[in-house]
Amino acid sequence: MKLLEERILRDGKVYPGEVLKVGGFLNHLIDDALLEQIGTEIYALFKDDNVTKIMTIEASGIAIACYAARHFHAPVLFAKKSKTANISSDCFTAQVKSYTHGNTSTVFVEKEYLRPEDRILIIDDFLAHGEALRGLISLTDQAGAHLVGCAIAIEKGFQGGGDALRAQGVKVCSLAVVDSMEGGKVTFRE
Amino acid sequence: MKLLEERILRDGKVYPGEVLKVGGFLNHLIDDALLEQIGTEIYALFKDDNVTKIMTIEASGIAIACYAARHFHAPVLFAKKSKTANISSDCFTAQVKSYTHGNTSTVFVEKEYLRPEDRILIIDDFLAHGEALRGLISLTDQAGAHLVGCAIAIEKGFQGGGDALRAQGVKVCSLAVVDSMEGGKVTFRE
Repeated sequence: MKLLEERILRDGKVYPGEVLKVGGFLNHLIDDALLEQIGTEIYALFKDDNVTKIMTIEASGIAIACYAARHFHAPVLFAKKSKTANISSDCFTAQVKSYTHGNTSTVFVEKEYLRPEDRILIIDDFLAHGEALRGLISLTDQAGAHLVGCAIAIEKGFQGGGDALRAQGVKVCSLAVVDSMEGGKVTFRE
Repeated sequence: MKLLEERILRDGKVYPGEVLKVGGFLNHLIDDALLEQIGTEIYALFKDDNVTKIMTIEASGIAIACYAARHFHAPVLFAKKSKTANISSDCFTAQVKSYTHGNTSTVFVEKEYLRPEDRILIIDDFLAHGEALRGLISLTDQAGAHLVGCAIAIEKGFQGGGDALRAQGVKVCSLAVVDSMEGGKVTFRE
């Protein structure tokens, strides 16, 4: 997606430790106009897949999921990271290691919101090692739901998570695939 | 907002400890059609206030903020609860006590995303004691930005946070104000 690549080149920042910072438009301050385009693009990629539910993980996947949901007319289910007083104990759970947060957390969704008849499109802002996606796929599998595929805004292709999932037959569509950030210069996969 | 009140009566659940569970449509599984209506309603309430930025707090405020943002054509800034490798150290911070989570956390936004010239509309899913709103208002004040007001999906009116803010002159608009949940029966403020 040309518009997203251009925005990454213009406003993204490369930090040590292979960190690509896009907080100015994607996952801290969210650019409404860009997200509209991202939602439209994701719909174009999965419009024929009879998606019944979009699943994401808090927090930064929620915005993209919502901008896509409008086109699918599908509800958004977001996996949570902390139990609160209003959560049922009857949950599907998965362990997710976060390289950005530097920890492993248990993510969960309540069983009643993820059903065997669901056709799930997973959406997230970033795909690097693929840990969050694997967690969400595990939740989908536990529910006996059908995984339609995964739509990602930015994939760090050089970290291999996306290609490993593709090799397993998962439909993974990333709107921008970063192949290298060496020397602070971002280059995209053709 | 009639549609939201009806949905709360139909699908909301009252739990011990004055907990109103609306995970089936508002803050775990998100009903796309309902959120569209909520976004439209919030726009109607603040359309003349020249909002330049919408601010919310992760995670469950993000969806509502995004559905409203489309009408305002304004970006969404969400306050974060945990520092990650991609966050600058130059942040505005506030302490927020959460009754649902049972803890106090430091929330923050990066200074570069919240500017003195901003006219801020704060959006959240719930307003109870008002702790989250006070935190977001503090961030707004620290930046020297102008607070336009606060739009809330569900206010638990009997917990007083909303009325205390109104008494201080803050424009707080809640789409559904629950006045009592005694005996598990939800009644709304006229």
